[in-house]
Amino acid sequence: MCRLMAYKGTPIVIDSLLYQPKNSLINQSFNAKEIEEPLNGDGFGIGWYVPEVTNEPVTFVSVNPAWSNRNLRNLAPKIKTECLIAHVRAASVGEVSESNCHPFQYNNILMAHNGGVEEFAKIKRHLRSPLSDELYNWIKGQTDSEHIFALLINHLKANHNAITPETVTDSFEHTFRNIKHLMTKYDIREPAYLNMVFTDGNFMVATRYVSDEKEEPLTLYHSEGSRYVVEDGITRLEAPRDNDQAVLVVSEKLSDDKDWRMIPPNHFVIVEPSLNVRIRPIKD
Amino acid sequence: MCRLMAYKGTPIVIDSLLYQPKNSLINQSFNAKEIEEPLNGDGFGIGWYVPEVTNEPVTFVSVNPAWSNRNLRNLAPKIKTECLIAHVRAASVGEVSESNCHPFQYNNILMAHNGGVEEFAKIKRHLRSPLSDELYNWIKGQTDSEHIFALLINHLKANHNAITPETVTDSFEHTFRNIKHLMTKYDIREPAYLNMVFTDGNFMVATRYVSDEKEEPLTLYHSEGSRYVVEDGITRLEAPRDNDQAVLVVSEKLSDDKDWRMIPPNHFVIVEPSLNVRIRPIKD
Amino acid sequence: MCRLMAYKGTPIVIDSLLYQPKNSLINQSFNAKEIEEPLNGDGFGIGWYVPEVTNEPVTFVSVNPAWSNRNLRNLAPKIKTECLIAHVRAASVGEVSESNCHPFQYNNILMAHNGGVEEFAKIKRHLRSPLSDELYNWIKGQTDSEHIFALLINHLKANHNAITPETVTDSFEHTFRNIKHLMTKYDIREPAYLNMVFTDGNFMVATRYVSDEKEEPLTLYHSEGSRYVVEDGITRLEAPRDNDQAVLVVSEKLSDDKDWRMIPPNHFVIVEPSLNVRIRPIKD
Amino acid sequence: MCRLMAYKGTPIVIDSLLYQPKNSLINQSFNAKEIEEPLNGDGFGIGWYVPEVTNEPVTFVSVNPAWSNRNLRNLAPKIKTECLIAHVRAASVGEVSESNCHPFQYNNILMAHNGGVEEFAKIKRHLRSPLSDELYNWIKGQTDSEHIFALLINHLKANHNAITPETVTDSFEHTFRNIKHLMTKYDIREPAYLNMVFTDGNFMVATRYVSDEKEEPLTLYHSEGSRYVVEDGITRLEAPRDNDQAVLVVSEKLSDDKDWRMIPPNHFVIVEPSLNVRIRPIKD
Repeated sequence: MCRLMAYKGTPIVIDSLLYQPKNSLINQSFNAKEIEEPLNGDGFGIGWYVPEVTNEPVTFVSVNPAWSNRNLRNLAPKIKTECLIAHVRAASVGEVSESNCHPFQYNNILMAHNGGVEEFAKIKRHLRSPLSDELYNWIKGQTDSEHIFALLINHLKANHNAITPETVTDSFEHTFRNIKHLMTKYDIREPAYLNMVFTDGNFMVATRYVSDEKEEPLTLYHSEGSRYVVEDGITRLEAPRDNDQAVLVVSEKLSDDKDWRMIPPNHFVIVEPSLNVRIRPIKD
Repeated sequence: MCRLMAYKGTPIVIDSLLYQPKNSLINQSFNAKEIEEPLNGDGFGIGWYVPEVTNEPVTFVSVNPAWSNRNLRNLAPKIKTECLIAHVRAASVGEVSESNCHPFQYNNILMAHNGGVEEFAKIKRHLRSPLSDELYNWIKGQTDSEHIFALLINHLKANHNAITPETVTDSFEHTFRNIKHLMTKYDIREPAYLNMVFTDGNFMVATRYVSDEKEEPLTLYHSEGSRYVVEDGITRLEAPRDNDQAVLVVSEKLSDDKDWRMIPPNHFVIVEPSLNVRIRPIKD
Repeated sequence: MCRLMAYKGTPIVIDSLLYQPKNSLINQSFNAKEIEEPLNGDGFGIGWYVPEVTNEPVTFVSVNPAWSNRNLRNLAPKIKTECLIAHVRAASVGEVSESNCHPFQYNNILMAHNGGVEEFAKIKRHLRSPLSDELYNWIKGQTDSEHIFALLINHLKANHNAITPETVTDSFEHTFRNIKHLMTKYDIREPAYLNMVFTDGNFMVATRYVSDEKEEPLTLYHSEGSRYVVEDGITRLEAPRDNDQAVLVVSEKLSDDKDWRMIPPNHFVIVEPSLNVRIRPIKD
Repeated sequence: MCRLMAYKGTPIVIDSLLYQPKNSLINQSFNAKEIEEPLNGDGFGIGWYVPEVTNEPVTFVSVNPAWSNRNLRNLAPKIKTECLIAHVRAASVGEVSESNCHPFQYNNILMAHNGGVEEFAKIKRHLRSPLSDELYNWIKGQTDSEHIFALLINHLKANHNAITPETVTDSFEHTFRNIKHLMTKYDIREPAYLNMVFTDGNFMVATRYVSDEKEEPLTLYHSEGSRYVVEDGITRLEAPRDNDQAVLVVSEKLSDDKDWRMIPPNHFVIVEPSLNVRIRPIKD
């Protein structure tokens, strides 16, 4: 079912997000706690921004498990960034291949997903059909996730002139409605779980969503307005100091701190460039 | 542009096809002779039949170059088969991934391709659109090749009750016409090169084809009614002895023998279960 | 800590050993039951014999987890053999690389190990030093396992003219004494766990061993004189029928049958070419 | 035989070193010009320094060919560094595995090699025998290169208190003498080719060396005191502007500029922290 993590804040060495926390994403790759299936060993990916060089993010993905990847272990303590998305995969739809690894990149945008659409094959072609040629051919892999992101970007580009928190949330809502419509039409009865995160490096939008409101969505937490501190092997969220702060959006709590807050069902978290956080319902 | 090889005949240890000939497919993976670009290092695949166990072929593919693959080197001297397709890839359309490796398998059928359709992205969605749901979702990768094979199987299943040399050649012709039609409609002016091989383990059909008759198709040879002998490090095609014979269809001559015959432009080679070989024009 | 499986008997499609049992080795790769750490996702390997082609086994290994390996899933239902060793790895000593995957092959011999020597670096060079040049250079990887097997073969070749159950058990005992001696000398206090299996395709020798007799060795079972049957999705060991029988040596019981017997601590299991099984103490 | 490249100078996006030059290292991975064998497709590696985070370099290696590596293509345009070593491999000694990829890292040191020692197995154990336990166990792979670097570091640590151009050149000379001595003793008659580069991020030492003075060493060039400019797709070495300069040490000229100078046979190139370059004979 995958686990994801997104960070925006004071530049941080990504090692302290990926490896050092007690329940780090690397630990979640083989021993996730807040989901039935503890194993997320079907590849992984990270994407981060280096605004001093370019506004396009770097992505690094692998079909090998995150816990044993030599390159990741080597990169993590030496890469510093103010915006990161990381993902460990448990394959449901789609083979274990680099093309199916999150985060997906579209120009300067990164996107990752935790969840899935059951019987996705039933709606795949219908979901592709409204795409522009460019987005149709942008899809490289087989996952429901990548197709949903293509639909999101397709709507964003066709209906909006700018990429802002408002146009992105609007596009998410349109996309979710679209998927619900297709699921009804092609008789998919299991709910779709769509915890998704979107960033352009400047702001973030994440969703905690399930298509059937009677169900509970997958877990998604955020920590707000804190500093993220690793000291003597212990990871803590501390009160911010001056401009030194960060927002994290994660599938599972990384530590035992009390600052993690569950996002309400079917709500957006919007992290603005200022690191202000807004939470509002998803109107699907 | 890829190189391919297909064998049908007396059971043979595949090492003597893949590694031992002077111009073996493994040599062609780094030093192909009969094509401008000598390098075919973007993955490889082999598929072979074990009729004593099942009528579905085994496929083994890798994104690593064939020349250094430890598993291939280990399997080749120990696998004996009467029907094999092997392929080394030079990526044109599609990333280097297992999903893009040939041969492609559909139930008991194996297929490989050498060539390509320029600007394939222009017609990809139109080529997918007539596919049945099953074949639409059968496609795993991004290559023109896999899409063309899906179209071939789609026609074969929709229009014929049996898989025979006649129904397969009919489906190839229909597919090639279809592609030419789409190329014209979406303004692709470069010719399509379609050297393809199809087998169900019992018979084989191969094509040497270019969509523009004024152009020369890529090379494709066959050797007919011979035995394939490796003796003292020299690979020879010999006169058949009793029932001991074989047909090879190859992108490049494997040896300096005179028994290799170039297939005429835009012709089929049909290898029947009896190993009889027929050559006839492709009516596109 | 790894999990292993060895089969000798009536030719069997390896799918029915690797995938179909309720607690198959593939399941053990992500959810092992009889060991603290359930995950064995650091690569895998299989080796099997095809006596009709050669007396050297085929080995196929991968650094990817067994559960998602496309080639393994493809090979398993189509390969039939009378002698197989399979192994899923949880890396302790040595990186995740093909060179560190079991089974190890030396000419016509296959060997796999479950267990480990703590602080192996302390004795590595001393363990290498008595090796012949040939065996010194035979070692490709970093594992304690491969080094111990080199020592075993070194003793076997230097002191015996033939490879028989007797000379192999003698060499195991010599090797284990050697390791205990080095551990004492270089102050390794944690016990060494050495569940190992050796075959030349004709007979098998396996050990269930811990260097400190006060400790319990890792689990190792065998099933003796049974037939291995997969019917309606249920895997059973049945009473042999005529010559149709098999012996399995496994880290964990593959099914709920009662025919699995734990091998006594510090004992050999010797499976003779006739499939007779002998169990006797290891004199270290 | 491999190709290598080392850069020290004004921070540069590594894309402009790896991909953009006419004869870039990526081009050399499939079409090297100044060596008999044009193919260097057996894995690759890059190592670079990020002094603002740590004095240990980042290394990123892969067993896949450099030309098709998605992660490398993604990292290169977004990583900026003032010190880089890159290497594309043509396997001679040692399998294609991550452990055999250059550059090798020891703490804050990076090292890469182009060349080889014939019949290396003859001296491998003798070369390992003087190593400290730490360096004995530091060796992860099978290459002559990694063993020679272990010997170099072993001498450096045992005989010197500091890592400076002087102590490094002294250690190279000692190591080369050592290898020549072992080659004579164990009857290796083919010359050893040892073009090697060593850096700690502050200074660099490179060697152009062959053990038999009657032979010609492999090519090795440097460009000195220039700026490295990519403009309109053309890569040029220009006269330095203020402090804006760089030194490159490369197996092959990257461009048609006249500023590339062949290093004399059996000479060191020493690039000081100031980017001053000294060339002096290797006394072996």
